[in-house]
Amino acid sequence: MIITLTTDFGLSDPFAGIMKGVILGVAPDVQIVDITHDIHSYDIMEAAFLLNSAFRYFPEGTIHVAVVDPGVGSARRAIAAAAHGHYFVAPDNGILSLVLQTEPPAPIPPVFRISNESLFHAPVSRTFHGRDIFASIAAHFARGTPLELAGERILDFVHKPLPHAPVAIRIDKYGNIVTNIRAADIRGDFVIRIAGLEITRICESFSAAEPGEYFAIEGSTGYIEIALNQGSAAERLKVRAGAEIEVETEAPNQ
Amino acid sequence: MIITLTTDFGLSDPFAGIMKGVILGVAPDVQIVDITHDIHSYDIMEAAFLLNSAFRYFPEGTIHVAVVDPGVGSARRAIAAAAHGHYFVAPDNGILSLVLQTEPPAPIPPVFRISNESLFHAPVSRTFHGRDIFASIAAHFARGTPLELAGERILDFVHKPLPHAPVAIRIDKYGNIVTNIRAADIRGDFVIRIAGLEITRICESFSAAEPGEYFAIEGSTGYIEIALNQGSAAERLKVRAGAEIEVETEAPNQ
Amino acid sequence: MIITLTTDFGLSDPFAGIMKGVILGVAPDVQIVDITHDIHSYDIMEAAFLLNSAFRYFPEGTIHVAVVDPGVGSARRAIAAAAHGHYFVAPDNGILSLVLQTEPPAPIPPVFRISNESLFHAPVSRTFHGRDIFASIAAHFARGTPLELAGERILDFVHKPLPHAPVAIRIDKYGNIVTNIRAADIRGDFVIRIAGLEITRICESFSAAEPGEYFAIEGSTGYIEIALNQGSAAERLKVRAGAEIEVETEAPNQ
Repeated sequence: MIITLTTDFGLSDPFAGIMKGVILGVAPDVQIVDITHDIHSYDIMEAAFLLNSAFRYFPEGTIHVAVVDPGVGSARRAIAAAAHGHYFVAPDNGILSLVLQTEPPAPIPPVFRISNESLFHAPVSRTFHGRDIFASIAAHFARGTPLELAGERILDFVHKPLPHAPVAIRIDKYGNIVTNIRAADIRGDFVIRIAGLEITRICESFSAAEPGEYFAIEGSTGYIEIALNQGSAAERLKVRAGAEIEVETEAPNQ
Repeated sequence: MIITLTTDFGLSDPFAGIMKGVILGVAPDVQIVDITHDIHSYDIMEAAFLLNSAFRYFPEGTIHVAVVDPGVGSARRAIAAAAHGHYFVAPDNGILSLVLQTEPPAPIPPVFRISNESLFHAPVSRTFHGRDIFASIAAHFARGTPLELAGERILDFVHKPLPHAPVAIRIDKYGNIVTNIRAADIRGDFVIRIAGLEITRICESFSAAEPGEYFAIEGSTGYIEIALNQGSAAERLKVRAGAEIEVETEAPNQ
Repeated sequence: MIITLTTDFGLSDPFAGIMKGVILGVAPDVQIVDITHDIHSYDIMEAAFLLNSAFRYFPEGTIHVAVVDPGVGSARRAIAAAAHGHYFVAPDNGILSLVLQTEPPAPIPPVFRISNESLFHAPVSRTFHGRDIFASIAAHFARGTPLELAGERILDFVHKPLPHAPVAIRIDKYGNIVTNIRAADIRGDFVIRIAGLEITRICESFSAAEPGEYFAIEGSTGYIEIALNQGSAAERLKVRAGAEIEVETEAPNQ
């Protein structure tokens, strides 16, 4: 059984290691995999986007713990959910929006409010639910506790979809600008405008571009990225997450 | 069986990975967990503090390897110890001070000078005992070698307690200023002065504070932190590790 | 069975985590160890050097995946190889040069062009072969698939040896300047000149040097490093990877 972790805890503090200690105390045989701990502090949307990019490459039945939790200690709820054959544990603040997104007539996925304190690591602090609630309950699920025992099912979990307008979602390690534009929405001729630049070419691979050429490319999760062959597009264009993008395309449903 | 690692090796160099290779060569079934490799270079006190914050969240019997080792290759000793139901392996430079701290009449914990070369990874270099001595002997302990076989018991291991005067111990990823002030020592009315600021309020959770308000909070390991709601207190106050703090309190034993 | 990862993916993006998801989907019981994901983007030589420093500390039979892959999606080949009792999987761009280096009359190690698509994670993208090809095939090898099933044996794999002239290969976390000078080549009296500094002393351990003294030391993998006792030699000397070094020595084969 696998448990993944996606947090904004960083790796300099012992927080991620402590979560693993709690998990292994409950479920000694689990495999723990870090998706990332480098979410920008409190950036729920970035975490939602990365978790949605990553989870489907794990085997079905994997339990994904996502903790970006500015409301820890407040009345915000904690939730456990099942979707796409995977399990998810997180604060109810929208971090699971993309993995739980469905369109009618697809049924709303089962989401449970976490309230069963027998599955927590006691005593529960008001500052570190990643340790006291999310790590602990994920480990119990890994040992076979059914999701339904977390608490009552809810339908009104928080939903924060990606912004509708085209925008730079994040910058990856190579300086590629990851957008919320689906590759499927760019058909035929198109113009993408960002930071004063016009991009009209989509390449199938990074190495297909000319040296020094800016180009669009379908990233490994289906969203358009703006890239520069062996250079950092974001640094050269001085683009940060949140930057506005304009798109003109022949695609009908943009 | 679990082995944790706490070092100042960083993650850019292959040092942490090499330690894991040595461990798995001796004990293939062990679970290895990183507490952190981002201790500031040579900062023994920071490592002592973080290890003491983290180890108790692992199951009893866990073996914790801590390597911040400016004296590697000198005559400084290496030690193996048992305390609180856990095991510890480290250079004898004070890094285990907090986990081995006892107050009379509690007995001095068993600490052994590591000298049994049959438990080392040969040949032993004079620059990387994390690989050649600490990783190797921890793996042997994980396989069942009793601590006593490391070498003779010693009583005069190095002890470097936390500074007595209030001080900023470190800055966490969110910019919270972690202090050496125990929450239990702040009772009734109090004033904490840091960087020209007076703090008189303690909050039970980060979200209980007003936006833009500086406040004190009991961190997840029992020490007071100075925080700013969803902002970086350290950055705004320009406070670094080592900064002096003044405390006035009604508590009798400050 | 152990699989190690050496990449330039960083830890902020989910790429390394996704590779682990693919591996565990094929080989659930494998131990995955990060050597490093912090190779400078596209720096094949740095990766080759670090992999060669690290692999021999893992047990024989370990499978090492190395992905620094500026040519992903182009016609560059992918290879699987066996050497020194270990297995290697990587793009054929020179990243395995040092681990596959042999001198006649030693035989050329077995290197196979990866072409057997039944061992890939489908569909294969043109941007992330770390996920779709290298992680997947490494996991199949871990489960017992013989290397020969990857594809036909080749002899003309890309070979990029370390530069012949002395040079700073990289800077480690402590600011030590790692060079390509073999310690065995420095015998008797020597002078190393770097950034206007003359170094004539080799120390056996970091702590053997005087405070503030620059010195040469044999690093843990047999190459000379330029160090400063408890300080950053690279920062003080303003030396970066690639900096030229001059060496005069009595050793005959320099």
